[in-house]
Amino acid sequence: MNATDLQTVAIDLQSRSYHIAIRGSLFDNPLSYTELPAASSALIVTNTTVGPLYAERLQSALLGKFKHIHTVVLPDGEAFKTWQTLNLIFDALLSHGCDRKTILFALGGGVVGDMTGFAAASYMRGVPFVQVPTTLLAQVDSSVGGKTGINHPLGKNMIGAFYQPLKVVCDLDTLKTLPARELSAGLAEVIKYGPIADLEFLAWIEAHIDALMAREPQALAHAVKRSCEIKAWVVGQDEREAGLRAILNFGHTFGHAIEAGLGYGEWLHGEAVGCGMVMAAHLSLRLGLIDAALVQRLTTLIQKAGLPVKGPQLSASDNAGRYLELMRLDKKAEGGEIKFVVIDGPGNASVRSAPDALVREVIHDCCT
Amino acid sequence: MNATDLQTVAIDLQSRSYHIAIRGSLFDNPLSYTELPAASSALIVTNTTVGPLYAERLQSALLGKFKHIHTVVLPDGEAFKTWQTLNLIFDALLSHGCDRKTILFALGGGVVGDMTGFAAASYMRGVPFVQVPTTLLAQVDSSVGGKTGINHPLGKNMIGAFYQPLKVVCDLDTLKTLPARELSAGLAEVIKYGPIADLEFLAWIEAHIDALMAREPQALAHAVKRSCEIKAWVVGQDEREAGLRAILNFGHTFGHAIEAGLGYGEWLHGEAVGCGMVMAAHLSLRLGLIDAALVQRLTTLIQKAGLPVKGPQLSASDNAGRYLELMRLDKKAEGGEIKFVVIDGPGNASVRSAPDALVREVIHDCCT
Repeated sequence: MNATDLQTVAIDLQSRSYHIAIRGSLFDNPLSYTELPAASSALIVTNTTVGPLYAERLQSALLGKFKHIHTVVLPDGEAFKTWQTLNLIFDALLSHGCDRKTILFALGGGVVGDMTGFAAASYMRGVPFVQVPTTLLAQVDSSVGGKTGINHPLGKNMIGAFYQPLKVVCDLDTLKTLPARELSAGLAEVIKYGPIADLEFLAWIEAHIDALMAREPQALAHAVKRSCEIKAWVVGQDEREAGLRAILNFGHTFGHAIEAGLGYGEWLHGEAVGCGMVMAAHLSLRLGLIDAALVQRLTTLIQKAGLPVKGPQLSASDNAGRYLELMRLDKKAEGGEIKFVVIDGPGNASVRSAPDALVREVIHDCCT
Repeated sequence: MNATDLQTVAIDLQSRSYHIAIRGSLFDNPLSYTELPAASSALIVTNTTVGPLYAERLQSALLGKFKHIHTVVLPDGEAFKTWQTLNLIFDALLSHGCDRKTILFALGGGVVGDMTGFAAASYMRGVPFVQVPTTLLAQVDSSVGGKTGINHPLGKNMIGAFYQPLKVVCDLDTLKTLPARELSAGLAEVIKYGPIADLEFLAWIEAHIDALMAREPQALAHAVKRSCEIKAWVVGQDEREAGLRAILNFGHTFGHAIEAGLGYGEWLHGEAVGCGMVMAAHLSLRLGLIDAALVQRLTTLIQKAGLPVKGPQLSASDNAGRYLELMRLDKKAEGGEIKFVVIDGPGNASVRSAPDALVREVIHDCCT
């Protein structure tokens, strides 16, 4: 495969279908946007980190398409994924007189994508938007599934909408400037797709983990494409997370507890998910669903991706109790019962509850 | 027709279908809620005016259905249709540990319904909700169409979602305590359905306007039912307001300018729509679409319903210019072009633009 070949993944959702374009030199190319519907104005939403690097180049690429192009720059970080920040987008839309056809462009990582998507879902009860994800995590995760939203002081992603973009432009060149920790965090979500859905992909990641860590374009292109394909296959069957889609949360139940317990932003989401996958694999082992060899294989790969494989202490007095308490607050919990994604066997996952005593043992085994 | 007969209107929207129940003695009857899905908790959202009258009775009716029933009381009025007030609902949901199956109950008028609907649309990206509208306006308008949302300092209903309830319970008994101004405001939306879609219904309203003003149950039941049926027929063909649905905004383009120009809350929404319909009828006349007799007929009916038929002065220096300026900010405007709903002929409406000069003449004719 030539690194300059354009890869595409089609997301089939009837009237809300779209496609993901994957390659270098994409986001600043006017050809990436020619198929978008006509509109008099566009709003680029970005943050203080990504904006200075890429906002002007995106604006130049859009000049021939839109009469008015505005930009709003949000503060960077999960701590700003709040209503106050979201309102900066609404302020910009209204003060510039943007109408129902205005197209929003989310230029940045997952936080920018989630907030821009929710702003698009809510402004005038829905305007179109385009995702231009500039982190590996956003390219493999936010590109597919239509989950948008903001945090509430009492819980992460508690307020939001399912809302699909018109198009996703994954420019691999933007990954060149990504900090190493964020590359690893993105790899956590890439690795996730192996054990839950595609053992062949898991083997491919194991064979190419060094190339991925070295940011080789061919390896990154395949990782992004295959991750999006698997996610699209799952989401296509269950757009609103009634059942199957929940397997995409492999590692996330433990991971969310880590993020909430340490305070959001202490560990990156992908780091918490990486460690959470090790814990979920241990739980699968204790439930008698997989053997120790697969747990070891996953742990080794997650470690090679530069991710933590030991959970942090969240309480000096009752660490497991604190994990359980936090997991019961997770929005996947129902009537106080925690839902875990477990591996039923290599390449297969399901959602189930587990006895507290067993979960306590897993936490005890997996925490430093 | 017996006033105690249960009337229902089916809203057919595939997987989001629901029905509207219309009668007295409904909202505090447990039988009104038996068909709702099982959930461990419910949250009643109401306001400081309606809550003291009805919240406990609704809670009693729900006792056998839900293990936990919580209530949140919002400040009353359009001025509080803000993010800050909406957040009181999220705070209540999260502090009570409400999950994805929790059912929200909107007990109140249009503002409570719009905010509860948007909270339901957004909490955990969507939880179910039930409308229990206690004003005539809410019964005939918010019951159908799924429009939810809040205001932004720069525009009304600018942030929201299309989101359908599980059920709507229109209890005619709650109209007995409605202030006269609010009854009239509700009648504005009832009258609206005549000229745009059903001339027979217009004649029926003319024949029963005194009975409606006297709050006779049979007359109210028919007015609510027929209004919901017509709106359902329109919305069923155009759920997301791509085309036909826009005719429901008859009177609203002028009406929104009045509301915005005077400051929201000065005139009730229905009052502004009543006057706006007179202005839209005059515009239709000037465009040569209808004759003066229909304009007079509508004006007389609107006046009999206790509604204003003369527009207020919004500017001492250039009144028409101020109306035009405000209408260009309306979210139905596209690229600065104002969209008017006009009567093409009795019982038929369409959306079109009109020359500024003509609109100025209409404003001049219709304002005091």
